[in-house]
Amino acid sequence: MRIEVVGIGAGDPDQITVQAVAVLGRVDVVFLLDKADAAGELMALREALISRYAPQARIVRGADPDRDRVSPGYTAAVDDWRTRRADVCAEMVGELGPDEVGAFLVWGDPSLYDSVIAVLEDVRSRGTDFELGVVPGISSVSALAAKHATTLNQVGGAVQITTGRRLASGWPDGVDDLVVMLDAQCAFLAYPDAEIRWGAYVSTPDEILISGRVSEVGERIRREREAARASKGWIMDTYLLRRPR
Amino acid sequence: MRIEVVGIGAGDPDQITVQAVAVLGRVDVVFLLDKADAAGELMALREALISRYAPQARIVRGADPDRDRVSPGYTAAVDDWRTRRADVCAEMVGELGPDEVGAFLVWGDPSLYDSVIAVLEDVRSRGTDFELGVVPGISSVSALAAKHATTLNQVGGAVQITTGRRLASGWPDGVDDLVVMLDAQCAFLAYPDAEIRWGAYVSTPDEILISGRVSEVGERIRREREAARASKGWIMDTYLLRRPR
Repeated sequence: MRIEVVGIGAGDPDQITVQAVAVLGRVDVVFLLDKADAAGELMALREALISRYAPQARIVRGADPDRDRVSPGYTAAVDDWRTRRADVCAEMVGELGPDEVGAFLVWGDPSLYDSVIAVLEDVRSRGTDFELGVVPGISSVSALAAKHATTLNQVGGAVQITTGRRLASGWPDGVDDLVVMLDAQCAFLAYPDAEIRWGAYVSTPDEILISGRVSEVGERIRREREAARASKGWIMDTYLLRRPR
Repeated sequence: MRIEVVGIGAGDPDQITVQAVAVLGRVDVVFLLDKADAAGELMALREALISRYAPQARIVRGADPDRDRVSPGYTAAVDDWRTRRADVCAEMVGELGPDEVGAFLVWGDPSLYDSVIAVLEDVRSRGTDFELGVVPGISSVSALAAKHATTLNQVGGAVQITTGRRLASGWPDGVDDLVVMLDAQCAFLAYPDAEIRWGAYVSTPDEILISGRVSEVGERIRREREAARASKGWIMDTYLLRRPR
């Protein structure tokens, strides 16, 4: 029994690697963990990838439990959500025959702000034994940098990948370049002199890219972000923030 | 005139994306910037990728200038090296016809610890006008995390990508997870309680992976690293370092 966690890139179906295509072409099962409120477009994109690259696979679906996003105990809420998610995944993995290979598909790269690897470790620690393989993917961070034709780090410098929640409590010490994920509050607005390179729905037909000094483009990003989220019902955005020299 | 900077993944020829394959399949020119002391194996791997994915392209070669690695003025030395590199690249780009498309190939992802994008901006600022596209690639960081079947960040946490040089002057504040590049001095040895996930030549047939507590595996990593470097004449390694809770 083997499970592959396969990074499928940031949205463009051509952003998948030759390795991921090869792995998907020989799996027996594709596991789909769907949120009740999942964006229909993303699900459709993923189904198109499966029809194209894993037409032979049978699909095993599970309902991704709701996450308590408003609890003040962020880590505790995530831990509880992970436990319930592991329950669901253990049941799904139970559908896999002893000589079969199954795959979980992950948008972007499985190593960055994704919980599938951790959940599968939970499942394994409960006694379900399987080999675990990971196929790296193009992260939303690499996709964003490519679209802005820029680098994450400056010469010899560091770059920190962090969350909007953490940025809201201050710019991290000792680092001039940030990649910010999961920022629903537009924490960048607190840094008017910084240079921002922002993108939403990067690598999809709805992609929006805006860059410039926060004092000049920050409010526009906030407005366009809000409008896009309202019109599509969901948003996926990321940005690079560079401290002025 | 258009130039594409194409990420070709961390070493495994299958770690290239479908998008990169498509772009390489229609470029007129592939630019190769070679260091005098470049590892012959890496050059051979890259030539194999070109024969496979860009057999139609003509090759334009340039000699990558030597870099002063011992100067105490690190940034100044890098700036000077970049200027000389821009001279060479400007000349190479001059070989491209007005309606042609050329490509620079970059190991890993062009956004991370690579200077081609910055050098091409220098070339453009000198007056050579061209469109610039970037095709993201699987970074050595994603490849390493995948091989260790682990994530870069912990739940809601930050991760800092930094250099051995910077780590040698202290663990950065406010972040428990580090990705360390370019560490010739084994700076991790100063953190015996940290968990390390190290890899050399990741995604190539010579791959070496070692993980564990630094106090238990650190010396072994140092020895294997030294032995591999001596026997192959070069090394490319990276690691994840997690502060104990």
